[in-house]
Amino acid sequence: MHPFVETSEIQVPDALIDQVLGQHEACDIIRQAAMQRRHVLLIGVPGTGKSLLGQAMAELTKVEQPEDILVFPNPEAPHQPSVRRVPAGHGQAQKTAHQTRARRASESLRLLIWVIVAALVLVSVYFAVRDKTVTYLMGGLLGVALVLWWRRSMLAAPAAMIPKLLVQHPAEHAPFVDATGLRAGALLGDVRHDPYQSGGVETPPHHLVEAGAIHRAHGGVLYIDEVSLLGLDAQHHLLTAMQERQFAITGRSPGSSGTMVHTSPVPCDFTLVLAGNIEDVNHLHPALRSRIRGYGYEIYTRDSMVDTEENQWLIARLVAQEIRRDGKIPHCSAAGVQAVIEAARLRCDQPGKLSCRFRELGGLIRIAGDIAVREGSPLITAVHVDRALNWSLPIEEQIAQHHRGTNTYETSDLDRGPW
Amino acid sequence: MHPFVETSEIQVPDALIDQVLGQHEACDIIRQAAMQRRHVLLIGVPGTGKSLLGQAMAELTKVEQPEDILVFPNPEAPHQPSVRRVPAGHGQAQKTAHQTRARRASESLRLLIWVIVAALVLVSVYFAVRDKTVTYLMGGLLGVALVLWWRRSMLAAPAAMIPKLLVQHPAEHAPFVDATGLRAGALLGDVRHDPYQSGGVETPPHHLVEAGAIHRAHGGVLYIDEVSLLGLDAQHHLLTAMQERQFAITGRSPGSSGTMVHTSPVPCDFTLVLAGNIEDVNHLHPALRSRIRGYGYEIYTRDSMVDTEENQWLIARLVAQEIRRDGKIPHCSAAGVQAVIEAARLRCDQPGKLSCRFRELGGLIRIAGDIAVREGSPLITAVHVDRALNWSLPIEEQIAQHHRGTNTYETSDLDRGPW
Repeated sequence: MHPFVETSEIQVPDALIDQVLGQHEACDIIRQAAMQRRHVLLIGVPGTGKSLLGQAMAELTKVEQPEDILVFPNPEAPHQPSVRRVPAGHGQAQKTAHQTRARRASESLRLLIWVIVAALVLVSVYFAVRDKTVTYLMGGLLGVALVLWWRRSMLAAPAAMIPKLLVQHPAEHAPFVDATGLRAGALLGDVRHDPYQSGGVETPPHHLVEAGAIHRAHGGVLYIDEVSLLGLDAQHHLLTAMQERQFAITGRSPGSSGTMVHTSPVPCDFTLVLAGNIEDVNHLHPALRSRIRGYGYEIYTRDSMVDTEENQWLIARLVAQEIRRDGKIPHCSAAGVQAVIEAARLRCDQPGKLSCRFRELGGLIRIAGDIAVREGSPLITAVHVDRALNWSLPIEEQIAQHHRGTNTYETSDLDRGPW
Repeated sequence: MHPFVETSEIQVPDALIDQVLGQHEACDIIRQAAMQRRHVLLIGVPGTGKSLLGQAMAELTKVEQPEDILVFPNPEAPHQPSVRRVPAGHGQAQKTAHQTRARRASESLRLLIWVIVAALVLVSVYFAVRDKTVTYLMGGLLGVALVLWWRRSMLAAPAAMIPKLLVQHPAEHAPFVDATGLRAGALLGDVRHDPYQSGGVETPPHHLVEAGAIHRAHGGVLYIDEVSLLGLDAQHHLLTAMQERQFAITGRSPGSSGTMVHTSPVPCDFTLVLAGNIEDVNHLHPALRSRIRGYGYEIYTRDSMVDTEENQWLIARLVAQEIRRDGKIPHCSAAGVQAVIEAARLRCDQPGKLSCRFRELGGLIRIAGDIAVREGSPLITAVHVDRALNWSLPIEEQIAQHHRGTNTYETSDLDRGPW
């Protein structure tokens, strides 16, 4: 272990993949999967860095041809809007061009309407005054009313031709989209419900189309944790999207007017990173699993690592990383880091090993930091970490402690508390 | 085994049935079943080529009278759209003809409307000027307003007569439709929900009709894997469709307006290829199973083959096939192929046999290829295959290894890793 006095001396790497701790093999596989754009199944206990691995994969993915995706109205079949791909950055430009054109068209239309109205008023007033009768005036008013009644639908026409910018892709890096726990509509795209369908007050169907996570992840990584939350139906659609690399958007809420709208196929060439616990494997659609086994990688993220000097150094780096990421807590002394390492030993049920549940350790560090801030200490020390141990217990253990009557507060050794 | 230096020299056969490896008997039966259009039940462990056998069967199926299927509105009973079969290729032509007719009809209607409006205006102005009274003018304006109010529903009428092209069949080959894991609506056809049913804004019911997988497979092969995912209800409908060779489409979501629509029978003369594991047989509807036993073939796909020179050559061909199909990895050296054959030996629990789980072997080849690409090697060598072995383990084995503590990374011989 490299010698240090406090964690501010420890360098934190910039690349996300180098920030992943204790998962050498997983990191190697992720590097390779990102290079070859293969799908990945990450299985392991919570808090072992699965989400960070997914983000790192997106960071490592080379962007080849970033694209924006636009939806245009289809005059031939209004309920089948057409989708077009343009190079990244051109999407907004095209939309703005259409907006400008629409604004100019409606401005000249507005001018024309006012000229007609003014002419109608002048002519009817002239005849009314000449013949000294009000009937001309009433005819003129009727004409004006008709023109103003048409005005709304006439003015709406040019605006209805403006395309909608469905997906805007950053040109610099591949997108990372976390689709954990999304319903089918948000995952696969949806068409909103329009309660008005007539009288010129309806919204043009292409403006109701919403991209799904699979479309926003086009060219990048789609990350889905807790696979078991995904229904078999959604998994089947996901598989189709993976194979076809495009997926048409249609309304997904039964009873919505959106179900009548069906776009042309929308590109969704993503790399799937599926994450979950060991039990989640049984909830995977067999065809999806077999697709990943045949065309990708299955990775088990370790929940423990051997208690070597090298791995202790990783925990020191974790402390430094978490402190920098948090930004609200001071740095940690070498003794404080030793206390965290000791906690990692205790959290692991096997002897001679360190826990890889880094999210839990991160929580511990943050609580210790909060105690240090409260006490006005310029550094997190071993004492703070020890005190934090009690406060970082998960609810389940707190309940068990309460029922055993072993909680520190209940057994009245309040002096062991943080102050 | 034919001598070769690298897999680029190995010819891959064009016909899918010749690409199926290690299932001589199954291939023979499939040839025969395709000739006589018999249903097939394929049982075997995953990854032994069941899906490829299904596709091969579709390729071997002779197309006798390819047909397109159209749905027309039924003026007699609007909620019972009528279905018509036309020779393949004529469907689009008929639809286009109707579209052209509708466009012409609405154009002449539009012209007629403007002629009427102009006549009304002229006549009322003439009488107003002659009799010097505005009342004629006001009557004329009322008439114009009435005509314009009718205009919308008049113009919508010809478009509502355009038929919907329900199923379009390729003329050259029989369709192959994979219906694994589909819900009842997608399998058996559905009618979408239309939230508007009045005021001239409703969609004509025949436009809401959607074909199911059974209809798209008309004249070809319907492939359903994972039979256990199919409910008894869906299996019962499937059996009806098989027996009648036609199946009417109706709305399948409860509470949808589509449930009121019921088409005339839609042809669905498909050959069923049902696939699954051995346990799936118990989830089969007894009547469906007995139908296949009586009118078709039951095939068990082998999970191993005898370790002969001939079968080793099959694995060499598999390597060549997978590399060509993937397109992202280089060819493989003869020694690399030997390493894959060795892996096939190890994957099989019986001595003197080779594994027939070709999807797993394909995954191994792709991972070895990814390693070769990463190292910049122009060929996959035995070293790459050996390294890939560790990375291609299924999650279950990775977990077992982790708990035994035998993983290469954990036992710290990191030097055995790929770099």
